[in-house]
Amino acid sequence: MTGKMWYEGKAKQVFLTDADDEVIVHYKDDATAFNGAKKGTIADKGVLNNQITSFFFTLLGEHGVPTHFIAREGDRDQRVKKLQIIPLEVIVRNRCAGSMAKRYGREEGEMLAHPTIEFCLKDDALDDPMINRSQITALGLATDEELDTIARLAFQVNDVLSAFLLTKKVILVDFKLEFGKDSAGTILLGDEISPDTCRFWDADTLEKLDKDRFRRDLGHVEEAYHEMLQRLTTRA
Amino acid sequence: MTGKMWYEGKAKQVFLTDADDEVIVHYKDDATAFNGAKKGTIADKGVLNNQITSFFFTLLGEHGVPTHFIAREGDRDQRVKKLQIIPLEVIVRNRCAGSMAKRYGREEGEMLAHPTIEFCLKDDALDDPMINRSQITALGLATDEELDTIARLAFQVNDVLSAFLLTKKVILVDFKLEFGKDSAGTILLGDEISPDTCRFWDADTLEKLDKDRFRRDLGHVEEAYHEMLQRLTTRA
Repeated sequence: MTGKMWYEGKAKQVFLTDADDEVIVHYKDDATAFNGAKKGTIADKGVLNNQITSFFFTLLGEHGVPTHFIAREGDRDQRVKKLQIIPLEVIVRNRCAGSMAKRYGREEGEMLAHPTIEFCLKDDALDDPMINRSQITALGLATDEELDTIARLAFQVNDVLSAFLLTKKVILVDFKLEFGKDSAGTILLGDEISPDTCRFWDADTLEKLDKDRFRRDLGHVEEAYHEMLQRLTTRA
Repeated sequence: MTGKMWYEGKAKQVFLTDADDEVIVHYKDDATAFNGAKKGTIADKGVLNNQITSFFFTLLGEHGVPTHFIAREGDRDQRVKKLQIIPLEVIVRNRCAGSMAKRYGREEGEMLAHPTIEFCLKDDALDDPMINRSQITALGLATDEELDTIARLAFQVNDVLSAFLLTKKVILVDFKLEFGKDSAGTILLGDEISPDTCRFWDADTLEKLDKDRFRRDLGHVEEAYHEMLQRLTTRA
């Protein structure tokens, strides 16, 4: 890794490359929860999330979802297209869990009448507050056309991943996406898709196979990440 | 007032009447802020808000907005149609102020590119959390058609009131509405429209003429409510 660091997040570092429109994403083992209030390390998380994300982005690309992913490079690195990230977290939910269950006083895992989409402003100092489409356009954070594209892609990701994961006996409860624009201004899916950013529940036992094991001190955190990678990459 | 009390809120009581589909709303002087964390009394607030709300609902009715309002009855009471309230606070904003400015780290009073609408779940125990349309329909709180009607009416209220208030040298910064269904299932505007539920700023000085004077300990609270009523009812 010789490029200059462009950005460091809680779980990843991004390095510039010789190609103006490509960067290297380096996956760390650092784990945080509750917007950084809880900190720790999950052994080999960087290696596992790099493989899991590479797997999902390849699958999504095969289904026509435009993503930043170019190739996995070794254990912890990915080559991706350089994006200007749109400062929104895009959350799709199939069941009510986590912050949504808490916010609206609902049972963890309650079925929803249809998948939901919500947006949060990416701003650690403000604790990533929820924001709606009307507010996003009024504050100039994105246009209606961009939000239409993002919502369409987010639900497409949900369709592809939910169907695939069910064949692996995994329920996709919810997940967080980030989008950005490449140098041509095209909106691409960025960031990662991993047990850090999704809720994965075993379809039979509803056992959690994601970062909630770390957030909620449920133990067997590393095993859950290993289990997810194994299910994804084992032929049914 | 002989009817049985049907409901008591922070600022109003609602009494049943001999007519099945009509209730009496009684306006109290009690003032609360921050979801009841701050409590007080504003002298004659009930009398003033009854007059101000009656004025606005009459104006809206003249402009074709369907409301629950039937007639003011004396100093503190209103006869209105009985509604089953939809458990959503509907907030329309022309400028970014109050909770929106704080939530997104914006300047108090920042102009918005267009008016915004947001929904909060009416639930004191949960602190009236923001909720978006996708979540509202997924949790079965209202249908898409109902939300379309509510949004259309809310923006119509904004158009009518903003234009009228400007003739009184008042900027309508933002306001909160509640809607409900009458016995026929028709969606009507309910609740109140007053300095308790709106931000009113003097168009020249930007002086606050609303409950922010109480929330923020700015003094001259009663005077602000009196000033608003006087501006509304004085011919230009």
